[in-house]
Amino acid sequence: MMRTRPLKVALLGCGVVGSEVARIMTTHADDLAARIGAPVELAGVAVRRPGKVREGIDPALVTTDATALVKRGDIDVVVEVIGGIEPARTLITAAFEHGASVVSANKALLAQDGAALHAAAEENGKDLYYEAAVAGAIPLIRPLRESLAGDKVNRVLGIVNGTTNFILDKMDSTGAGYQEALDEATALGYAEADPTADVEGFDAAAKAAILAGIAFHTRVRLDDVYREGMTEVTAADFASAKEMGCTIKLLAICERAADGASVTARVHPAMIPLSHPLASVRGAYNAVFVESDAAGQLMFYGPGAGGSPTASAVLGDLVAVCRNRLSGATGPGESAYAALPVSPMGDVVTRYHISLDVADKPGVLAQVATVFAEHGVSIDTVRQQGKDGEASLVVVTHRASDAALNGTVEALRSLDTVRGVASIMRVEGE
Amino acid sequence: MMRTRPLKVALLGCGVVGSEVARIMTTHADDLAARIGAPVELAGVAVRRPGKVREGIDPALVTTDATALVKRGDIDVVVEVIGGIEPARTLITAAFEHGASVVSANKALLAQDGAALHAAAEENGKDLYYEAAVAGAIPLIRPLRESLAGDKVNRVLGIVNGTTNFILDKMDSTGAGYQEALDEATALGYAEADPTADVEGFDAAAKAAILAGIAFHTRVRLDDVYREGMTEVTAADFASAKEMGCTIKLLAICERAADGASVTARVHPAMIPLSHPLASVRGAYNAVFVESDAAGQLMFYGPGAGGSPTASAVLGDLVAVCRNRLSGATGPGESAYAALPVSPMGDVVTRYHISLDVADKPGVLAQVATVFAEHGVSIDTVRQQGKDGEASLVVVTHRASDAALNGTVEALRSLDTVRGVASIMRVEGE
Repeated sequence: MMRTRPLKVALLGCGVVGSEVARIMTTHADDLAARIGAPVELAGVAVRRPGKVREGIDPALVTTDATALVKRGDIDVVVEVIGGIEPARTLITAAFEHGASVVSANKALLAQDGAALHAAAEENGKDLYYEAAVAGAIPLIRPLRESLAGDKVNRVLGIVNGTTNFILDKMDSTGAGYQEALDEATALGYAEADPTADVEGFDAAAKAAILAGIAFHTRVRLDDVYREGMTEVTAADFASAKEMGCTIKLLAICERAADGASVTARVHPAMIPLSHPLASVRGAYNAVFVESDAAGQLMFYGPGAGGSPTASAVLGDLVAVCRNRLSGATGPGESAYAALPVSPMGDVVTRYHISLDVADKPGVLAQVATVFAEHGVSIDTVRQQGKDGEASLVVVTHRASDAALNGTVEALRSLDTVRGVASIMRVEGE
Repeated sequence: MMRTRPLKVALLGCGVVGSEVARIMTTHADDLAARIGAPVELAGVAVRRPGKVREGIDPALVTTDATALVKRGDIDVVVEVIGGIEPARTLITAAFEHGASVVSANKALLAQDGAALHAAAEENGKDLYYEAAVAGAIPLIRPLRESLAGDKVNRVLGIVNGTTNFILDKMDSTGAGYQEALDEATALGYAEADPTADVEGFDAAAKAAILAGIAFHTRVRLDDVYREGMTEVTAADFASAKEMGCTIKLLAICERAADGASVTARVHPAMIPLSHPLASVRGAYNAVFVESDAAGQLMFYGPGAGGSPTASAVLGDLVAVCRNRLSGATGPGESAYAALPVSPMGDVVTRYHISLDVADKPGVLAQVATVFAEHGVSIDTVRQQGKDGEASLVVVTHRASDAALNGTVEALRSLDTVRGVASIMRVEGE
C-alpha cells in the first residue's frame, strides 16, 4: 500500500529543534515511511546563516529565501521552527495559500494569532498542527483536542515552563535566592542570556492561552491571560511555604467558572501543597493536570523543552499531517464554538497567603481582621510573630475573589499600624 | 458547516460504561454535535435483560437482538462495551461488513484478535478505535499511535490495573496480608466477586499486549505476554521491599531489547524504588511511563477504570470516528510493519531480590555465592540474618537474564544447606 512519490517537507529554521527534526527524518526515514504510507523527503531548509555547517543536511537544500521555499507549490508540509511573530506568520499564511499544511512549534504566534492562522488553514483546506508549542514532547494538544473531545474540561493546571521550574526547584532545595538560582540556570544552559520571556511568565502565558482555547472551545489570546512573573519570589517566601507544608511553582491555570458561563486563564507563582503531584516535578520537567467531568483528574508529565523532545512532538504532528494529506482529509481544526467570555483576574477565586509587617502593639490583629471582614475575605489562619518591637502577621485566607483580595490589601496598606505588605502569594492545588 | 442528518450510533451493552456513554450523549448532545460537525443520535441499544429500567434511555431503542442492530445498515458507529470474546468479536466483524466503524473498550478481545479485527476494519474501509481498552480515561493509545508516531519507543512501564494497585497499596500502607486487602477491595467495589482476571494479571497482560503492539509496531498477542499474578505477594515481601527503600507494584512492562531486534512484554509484581513516580500511584489509579529516543521519559496518570472515566475515553473515540466518517477518511489503522520477534521471558534482563532460608552454619554464604557465580548472575548485595539455628539470606542481584536467574534458583534449591526459597521478586524502575 506504500505510495512511492515522496511527500515533500520544507523546514523553516534549523536551530536546536530544526536540526534534530532533520536528523530524525534521515535516520528514521524507513520508519516514518512505514507509518505514513509514503516516504517523506526534506525538500528545503530555510535558514538565516547559510554559511554555517549543518551536519547531515545536504547543502543544496539550504536557502535563505524562506518565502520562495514556502511558495514553491510542490511542498506538502511546512515545518516552522523559527519562533517569534514575524516572519513566521507571513510564511505560514503563504504556505497555506500555496498548498502546504503546516506543523509549528511557535507558541507566541499561536497565542497571538491562532484564530487567523486556523482560518487560513481552513480556507485552504489544510492542516495546522502544533503539539510542540506546549510542553515540548508531552502530548497535551492532541489529548485535549481529541481524547477529551467527548468530555467537558473544567480545569488545566500545570508547570509549562522548564526554565522557571528549574530556578524555583533550585531555590526550594538549596535555599538560594532568585538571582543565584537564575545564574546557575544560565550557566547550565537552562536559561537564555535574556531570560525575560521565561521568568516574567510570557512563555507560560502563551501556552496557557493555547491550552485554554482548546480546553474550553473558546478563543483565548495572550492578552486575555493574567500574567505575573516569578522574579520577586524570595527565599523568605519559600520558608513561608515550607511552614505551610507547601512549595512554590510558577503555574499556568485555566479554569471554567463554577457556573460554567465564563473562563479564566492566568500565570503566576503560587504555593502548592507538597502532597500535590505537581510539587514533586523537579528541574526543567513540565507536568500538566487536566480535570474534566467524566475522566476526572489526568496528569501528563515529561520534558517540556529541548531539541529532541520538541522534535519528537514535531515529527508526531508531521506523521499525522502527512497521513491526512494522503487520505485527502484534514484533522480537527480550531474549535471555538463555545465562545465563552474570558473573565478578568479580579473574578478569579482562590486562596491567599499574605505576610504583613505590623507594629507590635495591642489591637493590631483586631484592626487587620476587621479590614479582611469588611472586604468579605474570610480568614483561615493567622500567625503572629513579634521581633524587636516590630511584628509580622501571616494571614492565610479562605477562597476569595482576586478583586476582594486586592481591595483588602489596599485598605491594609492605609492602616497606620501596617508598616508594609511583605508578600502576597496565591495558594493552589488544594 | 453543521450537517443536519445525524450520525447514528448503536450501543452494544448498557452496564456501568454503556449507560454512562448514553447519558453523556444526551446531556452533552450540543457539544458533541459542535465538535463533530453533525449531531449524533443513539439509534439502538443492545442489552441482555430488556426488562431492566434504564434511566434516560428511550425503551423503544432497547433490543436484545444485537446482531440485527449491527446489521441494520444505517448505523454509522457501533460502540461495543460488552466485553469478553464472544459475541463481541462476531458483532464487531459484522458491524464492519455492514458499513459501521467501531469504538470498543474490549481489551481481552483486542489482545487476542486485534490483528483480525484491524484487518476487517481495513478491508471495509472503516475505523477501529479503542482508547478505553487500556487504562480507562488516560489517553495512551492515541499518544502512542499518533503523538509518538515520529519517535522510537523503547519501553512502556506502568500500573494498568486499578484493582491490584488498590490491594497492593492497602498492603503497603496498613501491613495487611493479601486476603485481608482483597476482602476490603471487594467490599468497596474495587474487586469483582471473582477477582481472577485482575489478581492473576490477565487484565494487565491484555493491556500489555495492546500497548506493546502499538509501541513497537509489531503484533503482540496475549499469549506472547509473560504473566505472573500478585496473589502470592506477602506482608513479608513488603517488609523486604521497605528495607530496600522500595514498594511493590503489579507492573506491565513492554521493552525493546538493547539491540533493537526483539521485544518482550510481561506482567508481574516487582519492587520499585519509593523515589520512582510509579511508587506514589495510590488506590485504584493507573499510571504509565513511556520512554522513547527523542521524547525521553513521559508519564500519563489518571483513573484507570470506572464508568465515567471509561465513557470519557469511549466518547473521545466516538468524536474522532464520527469526524473521520464525515470527511470520508479513516484514522491510523494497525501498524505492525516492524514485525519484531517477541522474545520469551527467559531473555528478559532485570534485577532480582531473593530471600533464602538457609542452615545457620559456616560456609553457606560461600556455597550460595558460588551457585550465583556459576550461572553468571552477579550479586549486588547480600544480607544475612540468623534466627533460632536457622538463618535467612537476602540476595539482590545485578542485571541478569530471567533464564540465568531461574537456573540459579533451581541449583540453589538442590543445595542441602538451602532449606527453601522464600521469595523471588524482580526489581524494576532503577
